[in-house]
Amino acid sequence: MSTNSFGRMFTVTTWGESHGPALGATVDGCPPNIALEPEMLQQWLDKRKPGQNKYTTQRQEADAVEILSGVFEGRTTGMPIQLMIRNTDQRSKDYSDIMDKFRPGHADITYWQKYGIRDYRGGGRSSARETAARVAAGGVAREALRSLLPDLRITGYMVQMGDRAIDRSNFDYNQIEQNPFWTPDAQAAADWADYLDRLRKSGNSVGAIIEVTARGVPSGLGAPVYGKLDTDIATAMMSINAVKGVEIGAGMGAATLTGEQNADEIYMSDKGPVYSSNHSGGVLGGISTGQDVVCRFAVKPTSSILKSRKTIDKAGNETEIITKGRHDPCVGIRAVPVGEAMMACVLLDHVLLHRGQVGENQGRIG
Amino acid sequence: MSTNSFGRMFTVTTWGESHGPALGATVDGCPPNIALEPEMLQQWLDKRKPGQNKYTTQRQEADAVEILSGVFEGRTTGMPIQLMIRNTDQRSKDYSDIMDKFRPGHADITYWQKYGIRDYRGGGRSSARETAARVAAGGVAREALRSLLPDLRITGYMVQMGDRAIDRSNFDYNQIEQNPFWTPDAQAAADWADYLDRLRKSGNSVGAIIEVTARGVPSGLGAPVYGKLDTDIATAMMSINAVKGVEIGAGMGAATLTGEQNADEIYMSDKGPVYSSNHSGGVLGGISTGQDVVCRFAVKPTSSILKSRKTIDKAGNETEIITKGRHDPCVGIRAVPVGEAMMACVLLDHVLLHRGQVGENQGRIG
Amino acid sequence: MSTNSFGRMFTVTTWGESHGPALGATVDGCPPNIALEPEMLQQWLDKRKPGQNKYTTQRQEADAVEILSGVFEGRTTGMPIQLMIRNTDQRSKDYSDIMDKFRPGHADITYWQKYGIRDYRGGGRSSARETAARVAAGGVAREALRSLLPDLRITGYMVQMGDRAIDRSNFDYNQIEQNPFWTPDAQAAADWADYLDRLRKSGNSVGAIIEVTARGVPSGLGAPVYGKLDTDIATAMMSINAVKGVEIGAGMGAATLTGEQNADEIYMSDKGPVYSSNHSGGVLGGISTGQDVVCRFAVKPTSSILKSRKTIDKAGNETEIITKGRHDPCVGIRAVPVGEAMMACVLLDHVLLHRGQVGENQGRIG
Amino acid sequence: MSTNSFGRMFTVTTWGESHGPALGATVDGCPPNIALEPEMLQQWLDKRKPGQNKYTTQRQEADAVEILSGVFEGRTTGMPIQLMIRNTDQRSKDYSDIMDKFRPGHADITYWQKYGIRDYRGGGRSSARETAARVAAGGVAREALRSLLPDLRITGYMVQMGDRAIDRSNFDYNQIEQNPFWTPDAQAAADWADYLDRLRKSGNSVGAIIEVTARGVPSGLGAPVYGKLDTDIATAMMSINAVKGVEIGAGMGAATLTGEQNADEIYMSDKGPVYSSNHSGGVLGGISTGQDVVCRFAVKPTSSILKSRKTIDKAGNETEIITKGRHDPCVGIRAVPVGEAMMACVLLDHVLLHRGQVGENQGRIG
Repeated sequence: MSTNSFGRMFTVTTWGESHGPALGATVDGCPPNIALEPEMLQQWLDKRKPGQNKYTTQRQEADAVEILSGVFEGRTTGMPIQLMIRNTDQRSKDYSDIMDKFRPGHADITYWQKYGIRDYRGGGRSSARETAARVAAGGVAREALRSLLPDLRITGYMVQMGDRAIDRSNFDYNQIEQNPFWTPDAQAAADWADYLDRLRKSGNSVGAIIEVTARGVPSGLGAPVYGKLDTDIATAMMSINAVKGVEIGAGMGAATLTGEQNADEIYMSDKGPVYSSNHSGGVLGGISTGQDVVCRFAVKPTSSILKSRKTIDKAGNETEIITKGRHDPCVGIRAVPVGEAMMACVLLDHVLLHRGQVGENQGRIG
Repeated sequence: MSTNSFGRMFTVTTWGESHGPALGATVDGCPPNIALEPEMLQQWLDKRKPGQNKYTTQRQEADAVEILSGVFEGRTTGMPIQLMIRNTDQRSKDYSDIMDKFRPGHADITYWQKYGIRDYRGGGRSSARETAARVAAGGVAREALRSLLPDLRITGYMVQMGDRAIDRSNFDYNQIEQNPFWTPDAQAAADWADYLDRLRKSGNSVGAIIEVTARGVPSGLGAPVYGKLDTDIATAMMSINAVKGVEIGAGMGAATLTGEQNADEIYMSDKGPVYSSNHSGGVLGGISTGQDVVCRFAVKPTSSILKSRKTIDKAGNETEIITKGRHDPCVGIRAVPVGEAMMACVLLDHVLLHRGQVGENQGRIG
Repeated sequence: MSTNSFGRMFTVTTWGESHGPALGATVDGCPPNIALEPEMLQQWLDKRKPGQNKYTTQRQEADAVEILSGVFEGRTTGMPIQLMIRNTDQRSKDYSDIMDKFRPGHADITYWQKYGIRDYRGGGRSSARETAARVAAGGVAREALRSLLPDLRITGYMVQMGDRAIDRSNFDYNQIEQNPFWTPDAQAAADWADYLDRLRKSGNSVGAIIEVTARGVPSGLGAPVYGKLDTDIATAMMSINAVKGVEIGAGMGAATLTGEQNADEIYMSDKGPVYSSNHSGGVLGGISTGQDVVCRFAVKPTSSILKSRKTIDKAGNETEIITKGRHDPCVGIRAVPVGEAMMACVLLDHVLLHRGQVGENQGRIG
Repeated sequence: MSTNSFGRMFTVTTWGESHGPALGATVDGCPPNIALEPEMLQQWLDKRKPGQNKYTTQRQEADAVEILSGVFEGRTTGMPIQLMIRNTDQRSKDYSDIMDKFRPGHADITYWQKYGIRDYRGGGRSSARETAARVAAGGVAREALRSLLPDLRITGYMVQMGDRAIDRSNFDYNQIEQNPFWTPDAQAAADWADYLDRLRKSGNSVGAIIEVTARGVPSGLGAPVYGKLDTDIATAMMSINAVKGVEIGAGMGAATLTGEQNADEIYMSDKGPVYSSNHSGGVLGGISTGQDVVCRFAVKPTSSILKSRKTIDKAGNETEIITKGRHDPCVGIRAVPVGEAMMACVLLDHVLLHRGQVGENQGRIG
């Protein structure tokens, strides 16, 4: 019951601080004989990597992942896979002037209150750098899923920055890789570029909403109550730093629907059941329907900003703080590959759980 | 890793179907020597019990809880507490005409696809009756919390029905017990009464948003990454039937805030740190700040309605369905005590985890 | 991490005290669509049931098991299976005179020291009655194994009573059901009958060694390190009341062997690998070889005896105690079906785990 | 439910193969603010390290442990502690000639049968090198225990080599560090030296029995059923490579005792309850009594020997094998610090669990 682990059969335990020698993930329960090379993981880390454009922190990190165990002659062995990422650009001095002050909106104060530890080096374990380990672990999950569910496609993208939501009528999957915000709406991308640039220059930051869609999920993944597929997805997303809300399908908006509107009607196709709509987000009663699995999560704005904020120090003195450091004006951007990685881990976990308990999808329709 | 359990130290496993002989909860990890009598649990079950007014299903259930183990001479022993609730008013015949059809928006089809089981008796395990077991378990957690955190107050209430949100300026805790919707806004209660009555008569249903607030939570509860206090609260709420979205503090709205707006400023009082606002919902970096812990969740409308919907049957034939049965026009009403119960379970779990790992709150301020 | 649960995918949580209203097991993770009727479980409970002959406690218990959930129309649903056994013959008065005294060799004193609870009604949770719940759960595991591994045979038997071991040259599986001691050695049965009768009449008790063999276990069950098949078997057996030692294959005797003697040589047959001997007990590196899986465990003598023993009471006064009650002169007899049940649970758990992670036995020889 | 993890609150997940780049342990749940430096762990690794005398494998490994996370300014932070040990002397070529053959008594064949993986480089995950990670993790547990239970003493020693048991009348704790076998009987040490030398020269190996005693364990640690202190100790010891049997207190010998002999009588002292004997091994009903906690485990002889043995290869051909490599004539010697480490991990886990659920030892006597 480590509080640094998640997953039931495919388990991931992340470790490491933002300014220690290294961080990583201990991944267990992966099926054996899955082809796995560092490059397969590196591609996802590079997507999350900071310093790639002016919209993300200028911290320079290679984020090069090493596979220390669990792979032999290029294939997984079924044993624990240890993934290590060395920290290279630490520059702790950036943080020395806030050594005794608590940054508002940051975990500094609660870590101190709980553990009596003040890791002033960028927040240590609460740093967004922890998500690099998730992305590496997610890369392992993706390779296993590639062999188990070849038609599965997991795609994350930004659907809102600040109060500026995308226009769903502009939705184009092909646009996602074409802009620094991973958004499917080219117009929104242009608009956000100006908006975020102004915020960045003013030393401020802003929140965002990320959507992650999994296409090609078979029906029957999940469980009835506490191990619901959507519960596990919500858990995975809510555990990402700075996430304050999670939605499945209609999400919070489900409150505004009537039963008549919400109940996705079912029809029969030669491929099996099809639905008139997807308010369920691809999950009914905690179990996948075969429709797209759709979740969204809100990322709060970075709390480390250049604006002066009132706070206190360890001695209890009231003071003010400006966090210099190097931070993301919209950390939601880099949350996109993290959300994809978490979705991959949850889906693999449930594929293995289902295979273990049920063996194969048993109910036939038609 | 039972998918029917939750909690790390204070663990709850619920069991039972809506139309079997009984359902209940196996509760383990409760501290010993806590005074516990069935009446202490019954009060919460009575709050959730159906048939109390025209806004909830007319199914008549005593929902009388029996304590089968773990209590000796009126005090917990530290051993598993088995809570059993007999099903009394089953009337399975109500469901016989939908035996082979799948209700849109309901788990019928996914349970069939996963398990090859079609429990037509009201959905079996996916019925909202499962939440009775949560409420009973939550009652145990409340009694343990009463002795560990005497100042703790957990309160759930409805803040939105359909698209009708409460007016926060009308917020009055004393109103919550004064209306059938558990809402703190008396005006909203009056408005919702008419609205829901019309929906009910038309055989339709509607969604809602419930908010659960915990006052008097000490700082230092939670953990840094996957065992975050807010992650565990989100997990607990998302696992409740029909919940499609969960928010902590500013929730999805955090996306619209700037870092300057979001960062709750910190001041010093004679009682310790105080904050200018509570966008964090009482949790920073997964650990409680000492502010009110605030979460919200959206409950979708009941999928069993009197409106005819298109669907298919087990043979794959397209057909239509009207679900007669006895259902809640706004199942969100009865989700209020369920949300409170889940909050109680999560908080007790983290109180015990914190005491186990850290012993006592260690960081001193001032 | 309930300390009253075991198993990873097939999980069993037992609950209940010897003198409460009922006890039972919450069984989760069972595959769906397994035929299950109470009679299938009752046959094993009847084998463990007390009062069947003069060698077991005269307490009269029907030990009738009820299935409260997880079964619909005679088949498992994949949901939690709640098994309840009512206590009928409680006669707490038998214990009233030892209310404040601690029985030497019994858990009375440690439960008091840990929990501050003194359940004088026969030891409450530490009573051997807890094992009835294990036997019921094991019955569920057997039915699932019957469909997954039809050739599997699990057999427990007594190989030593006091210092009287069986003569392996007399070993006859057919004898096991022919005597009250479940021993495969008819001569030992005759000898033990006189021996135990004398002990019983003198108010004394004696220990025993039970062996449990699983024939027809496929190769490939288990895991490399902490989830070793033999580790999980040892855990399961050591968790049975009164067990003080566990052995796999050569067991403690492995210490006396040389590497040359211990290394079971491997030959090839048309059915696959065969071995010259089975010092490994059917497990190498934590994974099954396909040979018989063999374990033994030692059960200490019942601590509740008619002999006067020196002890103390809650006030710390030194005193003496004679435990009247109704006890087993050799509780090891009734441990036989318990050991079988635990073996069944562990094997099913590993069958499901293997299917989940690996899918199917992958390495081919020849 | 990783099968490479153990512990409930203090959790250890080991990773790595004998011939990969590194191996280690991910340790979570450690209390914060415990002083921890690599040297504190290195002392125990040096005790286990191979090549220290002619009685252990001549493989040269520095076994230098690095702390990659969870420690800040010399104190634990309460976050995961990543311990890494680089493999330096791998010499895989030693194994190249057995690439397709399965070593009798070794995990080669079962790993192949389960995973379809043949890591011929010294058995990969099944190598005794995995125990280095346990020793490092145990070092962390010892430092935490030092602050929580200052009077605790954990001592492991060899009590039997082959069929040569120590003479308990020679037992002297001070002798343990004075001989290469960690035995408290100086005469046995002299005898074993000749015996093992002859075995080693003949290319053979032999088994051994290790005893681990914990003095100063408070009463009240453990749990009633599946989380028994002695069950968890048995689990921990049985999970060590090559262990085939585990005993608590009287162990397998408990079978030979009568109830009268076995029931340790209780007296009162000014320090609390004292016992006339310790057949229980310091545990009653799964909970510690305050007496010494005593366990023993049998280590089978190394299966990699210079004696030719019959076996088969991957193609199913019958053949013979001689394992050259560099192996331990009595691997039990190096199991001593491993057993100590496992005892430390189990005790810390239960100290934290007890503090979490119960808070403090509650039952008072006298």
